[in-house]
Amino acid sequence: MLEELKKKVYEANILLPKYGLVTFTWGNVSEFDPETRLFVIKPSGVDYDVMKPEDMVVMDLDGNKVEGDLNPSSDTPTHVEIYKAWADKGVKGIVHTHSSYATSWAQAGRGIPCYGTTHADYFYGEIPCVRCLTKEEIEDAYEENTGHLIVGEFERMGKDPIAVPAVLCRNHGVFSWGKDGNEAVHNSVVTEEVAKMAYRCETINPRVQPAPQELQDKHYYRKHGANAYYGQAKKS
Amino acid sequence: MLEELKKKVYEANILLPKYGLVTFTWGNVSEFDPETRLFVIKPSGVDYDVMKPEDMVVMDLDGNKVEGDLNPSSDTPTHVEIYKAWADKGVKGIVHTHSSYATSWAQAGRGIPCYGTTHADYFYGEIPCVRCLTKEEIEDAYEENTGHLIVGEFERMGKDPIAVPAVLCRNHGVFSWGKDGNEAVHNSVVTEEVAKMAYRCETINPRVQPAPQELQDKHYYRKHGANAYYGQAKKS
Amino acid sequence: MLEELKKKVYEANILLPKYGLVTFTWGNVSEFDPETRLFVIKPSGVDYDVMKPEDMVVMDLDGNKVEGDLNPSSDTPTHVEIYKAWADKGVKGIVHTHSSYATSWAQAGRGIPCYGTTHADYFYGEIPCVRCLTKEEIEDAYEENTGHLIVGEFERMGKDPIAVPAVLCRNHGVFSWGKDGNEAVHNSVVTEEVAKMAYRCETINPRVQPAPQELQDKHYYRKHGANAYYGQAKKS
Amino acid sequence: MLEELKKKVYEANILLPKYGLVTFTWGNVSEFDPETRLFVIKPSGVDYDVMKPEDMVVMDLDGNKVEGDLNPSSDTPTHVEIYKAWADKGVKGIVHTHSSYATSWAQAGRGIPCYGTTHADYFYGEIPCVRCLTKEEIEDAYEENTGHLIVGEFERMGKDPIAVPAVLCRNHGVFSWGKDGNEAVHNSVVTEEVAKMAYRCETINPRVQPAPQELQDKHYYRKHGANAYYGQAKKS
Repeated sequence: MLEELKKKVYEANILLPKYGLVTFTWGNVSEFDPETRLFVIKPSGVDYDVMKPEDMVVMDLDGNKVEGDLNPSSDTPTHVEIYKAWADKGVKGIVHTHSSYATSWAQAGRGIPCYGTTHADYFYGEIPCVRCLTKEEIEDAYEENTGHLIVGEFERMGKDPIAVPAVLCRNHGVFSWGKDGNEAVHNSVVTEEVAKMAYRCETINPRVQPAPQELQDKHYYRKHGANAYYGQAKKS
Repeated sequence: MLEELKKKVYEANILLPKYGLVTFTWGNVSEFDPETRLFVIKPSGVDYDVMKPEDMVVMDLDGNKVEGDLNPSSDTPTHVEIYKAWADKGVKGIVHTHSSYATSWAQAGRGIPCYGTTHADYFYGEIPCVRCLTKEEIEDAYEENTGHLIVGEFERMGKDPIAVPAVLCRNHGVFSWGKDGNEAVHNSVVTEEVAKMAYRCETINPRVQPAPQELQDKHYYRKHGANAYYGQAKKS
Repeated sequence: MLEELKKKVYEANILLPKYGLVTFTWGNVSEFDPETRLFVIKPSGVDYDVMKPEDMVVMDLDGNKVEGDLNPSSDTPTHVEIYKAWADKGVKGIVHTHSSYATSWAQAGRGIPCYGTTHADYFYGEIPCVRCLTKEEIEDAYEENTGHLIVGEFERMGKDPIAVPAVLCRNHGVFSWGKDGNEAVHNSVVTEEVAKMAYRCETINPRVQPAPQELQDKHYYRKHGANAYYGQAKKS
Repeated sequence: MLEELKKKVYEANILLPKYGLVTFTWGNVSEFDPETRLFVIKPSGVDYDVMKPEDMVVMDLDGNKVEGDLNPSSDTPTHVEIYKAWADKGVKGIVHTHSSYATSWAQAGRGIPCYGTTHADYFYGEIPCVRCLTKEEIEDAYEENTGHLIVGEFERMGKDPIAVPAVLCRNHGVFSWGKDGNEAVHNSVVTEEVAKMAYRCETINPRVQPAPQELQDKHYYRKHGANAYYGQAKKS
């Protein structure tokens, strides 16, 4: 079942080492199928260079394995919670990585400020860093509660997940998302790149401030929404 | 039309990912043809690995598309303004990138000081960082006003664009130029390299000063002008 | 003799340049054979690209060469001491490198704090940095005393080498280990990666604290011990 | 003439881009032939990927071109002075680069302290940074005076060029040397690597001190001199 999607998810997973976002097996991509309301995800702990499309695991939104010989990624319950909350808003692909610069920000417990147009082209404002889970949340259901926390914090901060398609989890790593697995990987690459630039930028000028709001708006809306004019595709 | 130039501009664009200056489609190269007073530029948002020479777009200096199926780079109006002001001074190729270290300086709002001969071999003095556009300039005609700002600031600072073939745009990225697209790419590579060294240099010695003027002069004039003696070509 | 193991040790050595952990010949891998109580190690100063499996050297735990035309790695006496103390605890592969970030921490004389789950997935707590040898220890038997120091310091600190499979040697470099040469290389890669992230993390937030203990526990025990649930293998 | 040596020098030059030590044409290697007292050097400003062995230029120690169609490297007079002073001490290969980290130290005006054994394995003590030339020295004979300065400063500091086979030139770049062009390249790679580690090391611990002298001695003499025991070659 979902053979087409398995192939797509496999290929999106393979992009993670290609873009230098993962070491060993430290990452996973999933994609949601709106018709069946199932999603396909990487198996846990399988090396990228031996993994095959048929190793992908099919899951439902109750966290049950629907098809697959292997265990799904141990982060699967986080994907479940994000899809449950946001799939109907358009979040149909999710990526988790420990990409090097972004994870350094996560370890430092800080969100990535929007210092320039590279960031504003993809993210409307800061990429937030959510708090650590409490001892109780960790012991109760760590991965599921990570999903609850992300969704809850976006709500609390009034952030639209479509406009801010990534989050840092304190002391942990990065989740990013998009309209499919491929776009989620794309947003992961951008997160790493802006994490790198923001890191250097603060070293060059320790008193740097975020980019002016009007510049952030200009770049974000040049690429998104009804009046976008970047690229070739017609937006409507 | 301009088939030869389209091929040349295509190849110069392909150098951007080769030299690690761009992520995804974040960059563009154009080249000006003095005979027809047209220029050829990369199409907007097209991936480097599927782009073909015939995808290049031909533009005139009024910003009209003269030939091409695709939309030109969204930064085209910036290229137009630079050619209008400087093509007759010898600026016949322009590159825009968000290359990682140089953009970190742009985000920090600082020009790149001339700390050594690597810089002085290519740039006479600091690579300046021009201010952000105002809200009005952004809303009115963002890309065109970026071109006006660059040209105006070089005039105000008394900088010769031939002797300082790159600029940082605050909170944004880098524009570089040269006698053709290829030389503009070359200057983009150098900008990134000196941005990298200047960043580290200030960490190693926070009180570092620019290189002595006589050393800057020596290296710049060893490679440029009537008395140049670097390389194989005769200068006259 | 031990032809199979020589091939394995050769291949583990070849992984060091593949993962970017060594420059020139600055690294070595060995693996211990519990049956014969011999170990196989890289020859000293031989380039990775001309080295062959049959160049590997067979040593006993008294530091005698049992087989091989070439001199063993000059760090062999350190390997001997570690196997003598820890082989029966499960340490059957050892790696030494001067990998760039981890060695920077060693030169700075600091252990690598556990700032996040990437670290906690592999190491239970800080990767310690042991002191320099004294003048007497250096002059007496430098490499052997390095082994004594590592083993002695782990005992003094109450650290289990299985739970903390790497150490920094002050002003020197890294030793890591595992259940075979391959796992030791794996732990070397992780050490370098967490060294890199911890370095950046402290720059981003100079007052950063280690990750909460409950998060460290969660990630460590998600991958290790009777209740591990990461990956595909059954643990018992 | 010297066909064998031209090939060797060509190949040593080709190692510079291979090891990531040069951008474009920013580097050169020469090697001295003790029999004829001539040396072979890279031509000026020729791209590494079009350069051929027969392009190498043969020079004498008075700075005259003895053979070759192309201009020699513009740094040739520096090579001349170094060979004149040190060829009889064993310096028979010279490399000049602007390698990125080492040049950052040169721009910062600081020598590279010996923070660990990676450094001590190759360099006995700090890699010094010599002062800028004066206006008069620059205008009189820049490249020749660079050579005089290096030789004079080593004498003044009581440093043996064989034991410290590299130098930083303030605001400029790196010269390294060895018993042939290949060893000089090797020392250039090490200089870049220790520059990188020292840079990070000072960030991790701003109060770091050089490695203890007895550890520096141990590592230096483990690889050099009559009692060396690293590697396979017999020393006598």
